[in-house]
Amino acid sequence: MIERIKCVVSYDGSDFYGFQIQPGKRTVQGDIQAALKRICNEEITIHASGRTDANVHGIGQVFHFDTTRTIDVNKWKVAINHFLPNDIYVSDVCFVSQEFHSRYSAIEKEYHYKLSTNEFNVFNRNYCLQYGRKLDVEKMQEAALIFIGEHDFKSFCSYDEYGNTIRNIYKFDIEECDGEITFKVSGNGFRRYMVRHLVGGLIQVGACRMSFNQLENLLLGDGTKKCLHKAKPQGLYLYKVTYQSEG
Amino acid sequence: MIERIKCVVSYDGSDFYGFQIQPGKRTVQGDIQAALKRICNEEITIHASGRTDANVHGIGQVFHFDTTRTIDVNKWKVAINHFLPNDIYVSDVCFVSQEFHSRYSAIEKEYHYKLSTNEFNVFNRNYCLQYGRKLDVEKMQEAALIFIGEHDFKSFCSYDEYGNTIRNIYKFDIEECDGEITFKVSGNGFRRYMVRHLVGGLIQVGACRMSFNQLENLLLGDGTKKCLHKAKPQGLYLYKVTYQSEG
Repeated sequence: MIERIKCVVSYDGSDFYGFQIQPGKRTVQGDIQAALKRICNEEITIHASGRTDANVHGIGQVFHFDTTRTIDVNKWKVAINHFLPNDIYVSDVCFVSQEFHSRYSAIEKEYHYKLSTNEFNVFNRNYCLQYGRKLDVEKMQEAALIFIGEHDFKSFCSYDEYGNTIRNIYKFDIEECDGEITFKVSGNGFRRYMVRHLVGGLIQVGACRMSFNQLENLLLGDGTKKCLHKAKPQGLYLYKVTYQSEG
Repeated sequence: MIERIKCVVSYDGSDFYGFQIQPGKRTVQGDIQAALKRICNEEITIHASGRTDANVHGIGQVFHFDTTRTIDVNKWKVAINHFLPNDIYVSDVCFVSQEFHSRYSAIEKEYHYKLSTNEFNVFNRNYCLQYGRKLDVEKMQEAALIFIGEHDFKSFCSYDEYGNTIRNIYKFDIEECDGEITFKVSGNGFRRYMVRHLVGGLIQVGACRMSFNQLENLLLGDGTKKCLHKAKPQGLYLYKVTYQSEG
């Protein structure tokens, strides 16, 4: 009998060349599949809710895989974590039906982006953008609202990507605590580099290097003029993936 | 003219074989001296308030050095940080008299030790002891008080060390916040591994594996029976070094 298994996984992206497996490079998918092979005694291909780039972190990334190996559901978590390196950790495992798909069944994704306006901190160097200067948080909060709803985000996607760039953003909160700013954005999906471009544009507004209108014109524009500010990967976290049944 | 320069430095100890320079190994002292050589065009030997071991972190470590290179005091900080790797950061630079010595002029040192009782967190793996189980914080707070004052800490120093093991502990606070426990201990000095043994003993008390009396007997004992519990280096931070003039 084939069992479909859904896992929630966190990882420190610092030492990975991104999520997706690549020959000869250390990737999150590669390390997870290597761990699963040792448990299942067969080649396992995992399917994630989406990729994350090099140095981007995962808190609530989700993947699934199929296996004929029968292990009690309570023992899967311990088994997988036993074979994983200590910068990847599976926080939840459950059995799901064959209809479930980590990517296609997802109805909402939430990303967080962390930024520090404080003096450089060695302990934060891989975990937030160390901006090191003041930003106008209120201005950024106000500007972030323009992204909410359904828009064509072609100006905030990469030059080399084509296809559907229309996405629906559900929330875009910006919180500050002791000089550390967290951007919390959720939506029905995000193109590659899209969150980093959205945050990059907002930082420009917060630094008074771009006006509210300029940002809005980028969003309303035809995509020939792109947002040129892409925030560094170190501050980005795939925070949560939501599925229908959990809604 | 020779200038004596005092620096406050923070470092993420994760990728270092400790503070003290060792041939062929990456050390904090080695990297700082390499940076200073590029600025000063001469071999520089720095003198720190004390060593820290592999994987132990620095927040307020202090070192000094002498140089004939004349640079404005405000420009030293930028210059040093420019040549340092991003896991070492000098937060303060000042000129001091030739009487000042980072080690011999220190009157108080404070260490922090971080421990998490929460579920494993990949982002904390190098920055705290991931204990992962409940601890009785009140019991540890009570037990920590026995260390305050002047004691012979021979049972809490390493087997291979001799000499004076008498130290004066000024405070030993233990704070909990959301399952993360911070031990804050200050005193006139600490032997190698001493803080890790003190914290290791307290953890045993907090886990109800050692009684208050057993811990006290170790402290009052003649040192033939040692505290066998040495907390991992990842949770330890040299937090602050205090000098007479700052008192």
